[in-house]
Amino acid sequence: MSKSAPLDERILEELRQIVGPDGVVIDPAERAVYGYDATPGHRGRPDAVVFPTSTEQVREVVALAARERVPVIPRGSGTNLSGGTVPVSGGIVLALTRMNRILEIDEANLTATVEPGVITSQLHRAVEQRGLFYPPDPGSQAISTIGGNLAENAGGLRGLKYGVTGDYVMGLQVVLASGQLIETGGKNVKDVAGYDLTRLFVGSEGTLGVITRATLKLLPLPEHRRVALAIFSQLEAAARAVSAIIAAHIIPATLEFLDRGTVEAVEDYAHVGLPAGAEAVLLLAQDGPREAVDREIERMAEICRREGAGEVHVAASDAEGDRLMAARRYALSALARRRPTTILEDATVPRSRLAEMVRAIQAAAERHRVEVCTFGHAGDGNLHPTCLTDERDREEMARVEAAFEEIFEAAVRLGGTITGEHGVGLAKREYLPWRLSPATLDVMRAVKQALDPQGILNPGKIFAEQGRRRRVVHAA
Amino acid sequence: MSKSAPLDERILEELRQIVGPDGVVIDPAERAVYGYDATPGHRGRPDAVVFPTSTEQVREVVALAARERVPVIPRGSGTNLSGGTVPVSGGIVLALTRMNRILEIDEANLTATVEPGVITSQLHRAVEQRGLFYPPDPGSQAISTIGGNLAENAGGLRGLKYGVTGDYVMGLQVVLASGQLIETGGKNVKDVAGYDLTRLFVGSEGTLGVITRATLKLLPLPEHRRVALAIFSQLEAAARAVSAIIAAHIIPATLEFLDRGTVEAVEDYAHVGLPAGAEAVLLLAQDGPREAVDREIERMAEICRREGAGEVHVAASDAEGDRLMAARRYALSALARRRPTTILEDATVPRSRLAEMVRAIQAAAERHRVEVCTFGHAGDGNLHPTCLTDERDREEMARVEAAFEEIFEAAVRLGGTITGEHGVGLAKREYLPWRLSPATLDVMRAVKQALDPQGILNPGKIFAEQGRRRRVVHAA
Repeated sequence: MSKSAPLDERILEELRQIVGPDGVVIDPAERAVYGYDATPGHRGRPDAVVFPTSTEQVREVVALAARERVPVIPRGSGTNLSGGTVPVSGGIVLALTRMNRILEIDEANLTATVEPGVITSQLHRAVEQRGLFYPPDPGSQAISTIGGNLAENAGGLRGLKYGVTGDYVMGLQVVLASGQLIETGGKNVKDVAGYDLTRLFVGSEGTLGVITRATLKLLPLPEHRRVALAIFSQLEAAARAVSAIIAAHIIPATLEFLDRGTVEAVEDYAHVGLPAGAEAVLLLAQDGPREAVDREIERMAEICRREGAGEVHVAASDAEGDRLMAARRYALSALARRRPTTILEDATVPRSRLAEMVRAIQAAAERHRVEVCTFGHAGDGNLHPTCLTDERDREEMARVEAAFEEIFEAAVRLGGTITGEHGVGLAKREYLPWRLSPATLDVMRAVKQALDPQGILNPGKIFAEQGRRRRVVHAA
Repeated sequence: MSKSAPLDERILEELRQIVGPDGVVIDPAERAVYGYDATPGHRGRPDAVVFPTSTEQVREVVALAARERVPVIPRGSGTNLSGGTVPVSGGIVLALTRMNRILEIDEANLTATVEPGVITSQLHRAVEQRGLFYPPDPGSQAISTIGGNLAENAGGLRGLKYGVTGDYVMGLQVVLASGQLIETGGKNVKDVAGYDLTRLFVGSEGTLGVITRATLKLLPLPEHRRVALAIFSQLEAAARAVSAIIAAHIIPATLEFLDRGTVEAVEDYAHVGLPAGAEAVLLLAQDGPREAVDREIERMAEICRREGAGEVHVAASDAEGDRLMAARRYALSALARRRPTTILEDATVPRSRLAEMVRAIQAAAERHRVEVCTFGHAGDGNLHPTCLTDERDREEMARVEAAFEEIFEAAVRLGGTITGEHGVGLAKREYLPWRLSPATLDVMRAVKQALDPQGILNPGKIFAEQGRRRRVVHAA
């Protein structure tokens, strides 16, 4: 869809009728804030930002947009890292942040039913108070919304053992591109009545429907949790330790990796006691029944030592465990303050190819003389090569772009993917054909066409126009 | 799609060219065997049965069928319980049983890559030999194929803790209705590059594509497992025990229910020591780290006693545990020998509605004077009301049909679904609109239309023609 015409006063008045006057923002400065998200270099400008407070209002707004063929861009907190909420064709940004109620926590069926604007960590706290557990924990959990997590199928630090957002979605209420409302799934643990539309909408990046309610699966909160940190002077030794832990049939709750540059940045930022000169740090956590956790954390520490870790700290207390985990949580903030622009990427490989991938990242960074630090979910093979740069410097940005091209090419060559948990959005749509065959892309386009024939839902995302390449910097 | 014309000799010759002469069956008696599956009362007749041995052969057969607009009905072992493999419009039954190789067990990435004809329990044994675990265990696991499990998103006895088949599918190779080959997913634990086509094909009952290879997720084999059996003189007490176990934040590996009729049939059949007159039996299993398993199995036994179980046996050994589990595994065989026709149904409710659902089943059976015994996955709310009848007796079958209508109506009224793990197929397509709204069905039809515009893949399944009602007995 090409750029839409600005909304005329008649449509704006209808929008105000639907959501109330304070639910429609058209002031240029206020609107501009909804023109970008956490992804550097991508910017658009919506014609209006609309804040519905109910499913019925979402339904009416989308029906109006369908009638008028106006783009609708669903949005939560805008922590997206692939430009997925950028209104490249103008239209209506549908900000779901006012639909932020936890509607129910059903302890008998172990479900939570929430509106899309609920903040992820708010849900964590609400269920943990009842001894329950919602595992998905994306890095932005303190700010991100569940709706955004659903749209991107967000992952997090607990993905290895517990899976990602999609693994916890039992049912959805979705407003279709026509404005019709449907429900998928529900509270049944098993339900095979028709196609799995729930999983089709999860991760569809707002291009197939607007999620207005979700029923999420909960688990009992693990009884016990322990954390360890292992410091390696060689990257290969850390990668061997990851493999050896899996080979020992231990699936840790968390198995994170930080490279030398990330370790230095974190230490400089937060003084958590990481040694200078470590080539790699593994951060390990296990949760579950007390005896098993104690046994497995010691076993993992032993494996790390055997594979060549110089130091291994097993946290003696929860407080110490939290402090060690903070090293990983601080990684992005610590890196982000070093240069004006931080590009957090998302290359993922089968876990057996981890060391090869890290080396490919380092080689690409050196070849193009850009600064890339890498951290991420080693157990998942989900790495976050993070480039510290300055988007105003076009010559450097061209090198950044070239380095990332090599990185994604390496990920795909190693059997991996261009995005493990951040989504395709705008930032990677030109790379998607590297990962998917033309026939696979055709199937996805056919699904998009079937569900949104007018192309009004989050246009320009996932699918590239023919022949275009990615550019990190777009005209602001 | 209406009934296709019989295949002419030219097409048969082309099929023989593709799969070899011994891969094409046209003898009427041999073909007739592929006209039905494990679902009573549904029968068709294929024009040919074709046995490919490679993906390339599947591709060529489907491309030929697309060109000639001939129906293609993918089939594994035919253990389907919803008529999903019945060739109602003739055409080619594509029997995938000769594509039965386990291609790889990747211990580093914890995956198994298999062809669709691999028998489920054969995969279990192969991975367990390496200390690994493939949890989905449908009742027909000794006969069923992985391809069939994938097509139906099969469940099993371990669903409560471990989920269903779809939760273990990381990637698929699929032949589309056009004959084109695509791959979805892969060995990456996280991958959000485009829509989740993997989960769209899983459970699509052969209507969207032919799965020719699957990469499945494995877990470490649990260290320890224990089984217990609790006998109740009141249904409500058993249901309370189920709720109390979940409320105690224990998620057992297995939590099965057998009603009085099933208990009597099993005891009569296998003499496993179940007492006469028990109103309900719960079969419990837990697996995991030894200490946690011992603690939780005792805790569950205690909860059962507290809620009113007359007897609770905790198996002292693996052998005794297997013997207790056999009570559940024998249920269908034990019931099946009592009358000529056994109809195993699949009503599912949120687990908190279990007792209400069992009572609704009993009331429907009494009202229509039919014999229905109920067993199933209590922890999942996934019940198998099993009707013992005789499909030759049309008057009785009308009552059976009426009773099941009430049962499905009750399941939907209680927030449940018409099928938890058996699929819609032919047997329930007229009930699907009870569970799904017209708009939801329209989305599913649009997806079907997008992927199979000619309607050649497993025609007549999932979607009912307008206005028809289900009939258990079709003309043979």
